[in-house]
Amino acid sequence: MYFSHLECSVPCGAPLADPRQRHHLCRCGAPLLARYDLEQARHWRRDSLTGRDASLWRYREMMPIFAGEQPVTLGEGFTPLVHTKRLGAAVGLEALYIKDESLNPTNSFKARGQSAAITRARSLGATTIALPTAGNAGNAAAAYAAAAGLACHVFIPADAKRPFVDECRLYGATVTLVEGLITDAGRVAAERGASLGWYDVSTLKEPYRIEGKKTLAYEIAEQMEWRWPDWFVYPTGGGTGMVGMWKAFDELERIGWMPAGRRPKMVSVQATGCAPIVRAFEQGADTALPWEQAATVADGLRVPRAIGDFLILRAVRESGGTALAVSDASMVAGMLEIGRTEGISAAPEGGAALAAIRQLTSQGTIGLNDSVVLFNTGGALKYLDLLSPS
Amino acid sequence: MYFSHLECSVPCGAPLADPRQRHHLCRCGAPLLARYDLEQARHWRRDSLTGRDASLWRYREMMPIFAGEQPVTLGEGFTPLVHTKRLGAAVGLEALYIKDESLNPTNSFKARGQSAAITRARSLGATTIALPTAGNAGNAAAAYAAAAGLACHVFIPADAKRPFVDECRLYGATVTLVEGLITDAGRVAAERGASLGWYDVSTLKEPYRIEGKKTLAYEIAEQMEWRWPDWFVYPTGGGTGMVGMWKAFDELERIGWMPAGRRPKMVSVQATGCAPIVRAFEQGADTALPWEQAATVADGLRVPRAIGDFLILRAVRESGGTALAVSDASMVAGMLEIGRTEGISAAPEGGAALAAIRQLTSQGTIGLNDSVVLFNTGGALKYLDLLSPS
Repeated sequence: MYFSHLECSVPCGAPLADPRQRHHLCRCGAPLLARYDLEQARHWRRDSLTGRDASLWRYREMMPIFAGEQPVTLGEGFTPLVHTKRLGAAVGLEALYIKDESLNPTNSFKARGQSAAITRARSLGATTIALPTAGNAGNAAAAYAAAAGLACHVFIPADAKRPFVDECRLYGATVTLVEGLITDAGRVAAERGASLGWYDVSTLKEPYRIEGKKTLAYEIAEQMEWRWPDWFVYPTGGGTGMVGMWKAFDELERIGWMPAGRRPKMVSVQATGCAPIVRAFEQGADTALPWEQAATVADGLRVPRAIGDFLILRAVRESGGTALAVSDASMVAGMLEIGRTEGISAAPEGGAALAAIRQLTSQGTIGLNDSVVLFNTGGALKYLDLLSPS
Repeated sequence: MYFSHLECSVPCGAPLADPRQRHHLCRCGAPLLARYDLEQARHWRRDSLTGRDASLWRYREMMPIFAGEQPVTLGEGFTPLVHTKRLGAAVGLEALYIKDESLNPTNSFKARGQSAAITRARSLGATTIALPTAGNAGNAAAAYAAAAGLACHVFIPADAKRPFVDECRLYGATVTLVEGLITDAGRVAAERGASLGWYDVSTLKEPYRIEGKKTLAYEIAEQMEWRWPDWFVYPTGGGTGMVGMWKAFDELERIGWMPAGRRPKMVSVQATGCAPIVRAFEQGADTALPWEQAATVADGLRVPRAIGDFLILRAVRESGGTALAVSDASMVAGMLEIGRTEGISAAPEGGAALAAIRQLTSQGTIGLNDSVVLFNTGGALKYLDLLSPS
């Protein structure tokens, strides 16, 4: 257990913060990051993982938890990394892998972040959590709040798909429908919760969802026997996973588990109808302007403004990666192709990653001998309406 | 790898069958069972499991696979065994566990059986598989057929819920809607497939789905550190899991991994609208008459006639267990209670198991100090319509 303190992600020079107290954003408005005693952590050995639980808590030494605390867990993480056969051949890649996040509780990668966030929320004495969501994050928050015995308030755009709303209610959460986008839902959640002392588990507004998401990189490193692939192709809404994995690369290098200077190139995939990170990347900007009239069938990508924009852009650029937008039609075609060729249930976000890989492969950015990980961030079950419009 | 031959489940005296050939039912009409060289298997040690893949193929020595063959896998099995807190307290049990099968590919325990069945189908040279289904088995078959590169024909009652049909199509399967129940769908599938040489993966009509399902027992034994709980409470449609786990108990005893004479008591849970096994159990019959006008919201329990009826009844009786039926309303209440108290996504079948546990606890059949495993055979996502009738 090497968890030690919190630090501004900029960093802006604010004093380090004590994680035994509640903290959300830094006083400068940027996200806070969890830090560990990396010198001590160099004593931690990879082979200690053998035989541990098949969940992300197998990396508990580098998770935000103190001795004597129990994680709030439903078996999240340690999802399969599938070496594709027919799909790789169709794209022309020998080494195309799918990290299948549909096998998480609540059917998406959001379970990782909420397992970590709600573990800390409970330890910090919270009794009620709240968040705005495009869908899956709310489902995960509701499930982990139930597992932890906390009340949960979910604020969700009024046009969200029915399964997202129903699944929140299945876990006993209170759902408020808000006209507008996730940013509007966030405003209402903050107004409502401030006076009531709700613990806010919004994307990057507390420091721990990142820690849950970073385990994607720990797992892939372990599953690939401690060799990085050439490319990570990641559908990006709020971008917690990008930020978390970039942080994980640094940790893994500094504790001596992975060699420095060989990180995967990070590709941020967005929708043509909501591509603030892609636009900023192309313009060479350090931060992203909000996207007007955001619209895409991939609810997880309908995020007009990401609070961690500068961190996402930093990861993409420093890794030598890229950012690109794909159409809704190509995402749905991608869902069907992943399903038909590999038997894997993919959300439109997973389909978007496939469309991006195809584009980057055909233009020669991704070489045919490169190894590529496609992040299928969730399953198709909440998106079946896209497959058979009625 | 100790897989050796096939044997009639009665047994009727038919010669042992060679698993390198295609076999479906025994010539006497009963299911065939996979057999292993259990003498040799006594050399296999439990501690060899440490560090193996987190899937059911960690038990490959006792699975139907030969040296040099690769399983068709999507990461099925090794699902969490959750020690409940609030739910156990609500029922009055300190040691209530949920085996959460919703974390399998295609969101249900059917993935186990199809991973095994389609592994063998491919090895035996099949190019097209077919089956009748109430829903989840068809989804699993379609996914594993896609993963194996086989064509798949699914026959499903015309009144099946839309998500089951859509998910089959996601994996590229050909879906035929049949008026009536799963038994009617089975008749049509058999007629259609016979002349075309389709490989039939219907429940118990090939010997290998049982082998996938039996791993539920191997996993629980391992997860409970090689001590059986007192009760297994299992929602029963076709009953492959009951038959498979009973077989696993025998194997685990004979290879010396578990002590003899201490098996869990098996409880078969059915719906009041379709309870052929419960009726036969109560009447002291060895086989079950078909249930007329079967009706229940739990699609997996809407099985009017189980080909393995005599095997299910044998497992229930020999274990000192029981069989009982619960109402549809209590199943839906159970789904909501599991969700609200534990954050676990439960199918109505899981809700049925909870209703049964409550009934057996309140009447004193299950003692308050007993340890109990509730089988949540799938998730709620394909059943959300039950929660908010529109």
